[in-house]
Amino acid sequence: MSSVPIAAEQEPGTTVTLLDPDGGSGLVRRTVLPGGLRVVTEHIAGGRSAAFGISATTGSRDEDAAHAGSAHFLEHLLFKGTRTRSALEISALLDGVGADHNAYTTKEHTCYYAKVLDRDLPLAIDVVGDMVANSVLDAGEVETERGVILEEIAMYEDEPADLVDDVFAAHFFGDTPLGRPILGTIDTIKALPRERIAEQYRDAYVPSELIVTAAGSLDHDRVVEQVREMFAERLAAAGDARPARPRIGGGPVATAGGQVVQSRDTEQAHIILGSEGIMRTDPRWHALRLLSAALGGGMSSRLFQEVREKRGLAYAVHAYHTGYADTGAFQIYAGCLPEKADEVIGVCREELAKVAASGITDEELRRAKGQIQGSLVLGSEGTNARMGRLLGHELNHPRHSSIDEDLARFDAVTGGQVAEVAAELLSRPQALAVIGPYDEGRTF
Amino acid sequence: MSSVPIAAEQEPGTTVTLLDPDGGSGLVRRTVLPGGLRVVTEHIAGGRSAAFGISATTGSRDEDAAHAGSAHFLEHLLFKGTRTRSALEISALLDGVGADHNAYTTKEHTCYYAKVLDRDLPLAIDVVGDMVANSVLDAGEVETERGVILEEIAMYEDEPADLVDDVFAAHFFGDTPLGRPILGTIDTIKALPRERIAEQYRDAYVPSELIVTAAGSLDHDRVVEQVREMFAERLAAAGDARPARPRIGGGPVATAGGQVVQSRDTEQAHIILGSEGIMRTDPRWHALRLLSAALGGGMSSRLFQEVREKRGLAYAVHAYHTGYADTGAFQIYAGCLPEKADEVIGVCREELAKVAASGITDEELRRAKGQIQGSLVLGSEGTNARMGRLLGHELNHPRHSSIDEDLARFDAVTGGQVAEVAAELLSRPQALAVIGPYDEGRTF
Repeated sequence: MSSVPIAAEQEPGTTVTLLDPDGGSGLVRRTVLPGGLRVVTEHIAGGRSAAFGISATTGSRDEDAAHAGSAHFLEHLLFKGTRTRSALEISALLDGVGADHNAYTTKEHTCYYAKVLDRDLPLAIDVVGDMVANSVLDAGEVETERGVILEEIAMYEDEPADLVDDVFAAHFFGDTPLGRPILGTIDTIKALPRERIAEQYRDAYVPSELIVTAAGSLDHDRVVEQVREMFAERLAAAGDARPARPRIGGGPVATAGGQVVQSRDTEQAHIILGSEGIMRTDPRWHALRLLSAALGGGMSSRLFQEVREKRGLAYAVHAYHTGYADTGAFQIYAGCLPEKADEVIGVCREELAKVAASGITDEELRRAKGQIQGSLVLGSEGTNARMGRLLGHELNHPRHSSIDEDLARFDAVTGGQVAEVAAELLSRPQALAVIGPYDEGRTF
Repeated sequence: MSSVPIAAEQEPGTTVTLLDPDGGSGLVRRTVLPGGLRVVTEHIAGGRSAAFGISATTGSRDEDAAHAGSAHFLEHLLFKGTRTRSALEISALLDGVGADHNAYTTKEHTCYYAKVLDRDLPLAIDVVGDMVANSVLDAGEVETERGVILEEIAMYEDEPADLVDDVFAAHFFGDTPLGRPILGTIDTIKALPRERIAEQYRDAYVPSELIVTAAGSLDHDRVVEQVREMFAERLAAAGDARPARPRIGGGPVATAGGQVVQSRDTEQAHIILGSEGIMRTDPRWHALRLLSAALGGGMSSRLFQEVREKRGLAYAVHAYHTGYADTGAFQIYAGCLPEKADEVIGVCREELAKVAASGITDEELRRAKGQIQGSLVLGSEGTNARMGRLLGHELNHPRHSSIDEDLARFDAVTGGQVAEVAAELLSRPQALAVIGPYDEGRTF
């Protein structure tokens, strides 16, 4: 396996087999087209669906402060018309075959996708490909869509359980790209000129920075052929460009401790307690996933048991780790009545300290492994999930792994490794973000 | 097919084939056990997962006003321990195999489920069966869980886009079981005595009112055998009881027009505009689904085009129909900045009037059919979705239909039928519910 190159090192015009676990089903192949566009597919036998996506390797962390929200704004605009299709024609074609289609922007990438019946895959490639290759970014549509994005920001403001994630990030990562909201702010969205977005489309959506992924009942060569035709003009213009390298590592990322309170007249206090985690490709990743499951990943987890089952203090409480190319954040979310927030935060801190001091029990480790391995297999039944795996590997990893390899990696983690990662990560300085009916100077 | 009885008319101790579309995969069988418990399974070839559920035929509409929320409270308590297992043991067993497990309460039924790897199906049946058959409803746990449910109510209050559904229902159906929230209110939850919940558990969770469903890579006879053993005591006590009949029809249901405004300091106005729909088994159901898709079911729908794409007035706008045994509600949801609410509501009313007057175009009908048929097939790939289909049929329909039959029914709908249902339903009096920063007397 180690002989398989990353896309950037694969000879343009060639196709390589990345995985072939099962003699056909699960076969993952990658073609790098001259001009730097890669097409990665997984053939899955037996189903009737296929998921197709085109992703750009840029997200909100690639923006400067003045243009916060431009990657996401661009994502919206790609639905608004191409050289040959109106917005209505784009959506009518996909809706008309019952496609599950949409797009999303993260801090590190942007993805346009459609899941369809396998017979409709050529249509999905045609429409999604057209959106990405031939957008016109009509000036009138930019102004209409500006209104839609301001609505989206307002909608998000009305969801404090989600919003607290942004409040935490803004405090934890400060005024840096990782600390800024993906949607941008009302001010940056109001000010963002069409020219800036068009520039981003021109510079960031070049073949070398685009990744085509597809999974399901499909034929790799046919997908490649159709993509090659759709992007012919752009590929020709790109000359001998090579695919972008995975986003792995980077300079040190500073994080802040302390507390931030956003005062709002909510019914619950929405709380995030977090500390610095690890980058996605850190070898401790699997141990940390197991730790996070044992601490707050299910109804049998310590936090669920201590906060909800024993004390009845919250409906929602869970722990999770968010990984980036160069850093990460280990977070606990809890929502509770405002008068119970001190107690909830106290219990969470206590459980963090216990795990940092003593790790988890053998029984918890066994259970966490079963939980993650079971969900991994169950979650891999859908073609969209499989397409997402392909994308994740291309974006952020030096090589692809099969589901069986991932299962084995979790199996291999020892209690000692979990204890070690707990001791190191959970004793780092904690930051706290709270949205609730408090004075902004209140401390917890 | 018409010779297949409903469960209530099937001879206890027998097994019937309900569907056999594909010579094996898709085989749906039902066994009615003596004592009135039914077990319905669908065998799906090729996958590695199985979904299992036990459902009670009662929901919040079976409660009186003083005990609003008791069905949902009971649902929570079934996780809190059985004669032989603690809450932690229950969740640890399911978490330990990566089960996607939970429960939910609707207005008309309550379901406990687990989706697992097929090899873990016996464990899922054992644990979920134990929860439903052998709950202890410990008095201390009732008090702890009361706190959790009060937290759940507070959490829901912080999600105005969802909450407006309850505000609408309370106005539209008034002070009736359909008008009351599933969670109950702070007052009813604080007052609900353990004895009332225990009584509900005793009376509503009898074998004749329980439905066992399972779908995936499974063996019907083995599922039946395991369920029979787990419920042996209850089945013996139930004597010659027969399964409950599907919930279909009922007396007339009154609905209100007019407006209700809930004043809140939100960033968006959250709006529902709705009118009386049809019951689930109404022959116009398929025409109404197509109408609803064309009006507000996707990015190419009229409302999305008029409100969002052309005018940029909202991020979220969609139409949907909620069906009950005896009535329904056809609703439009939109979220927009408060100063735009009048315009958004005006556009929605205008589109409703246009469709009521002229129906939809042939192109819209064709697209709506493709959309619903495509999603139906795509959505049926998961074993949990297939289990949900089985349950829906047993709860609310005189017979089971295959996915191919459903596809054909949508195919058969004519433009004339859609126009007819639009003319009749969309000219009914409209009710409006708004959550936003307004005086409660404001009109729209």
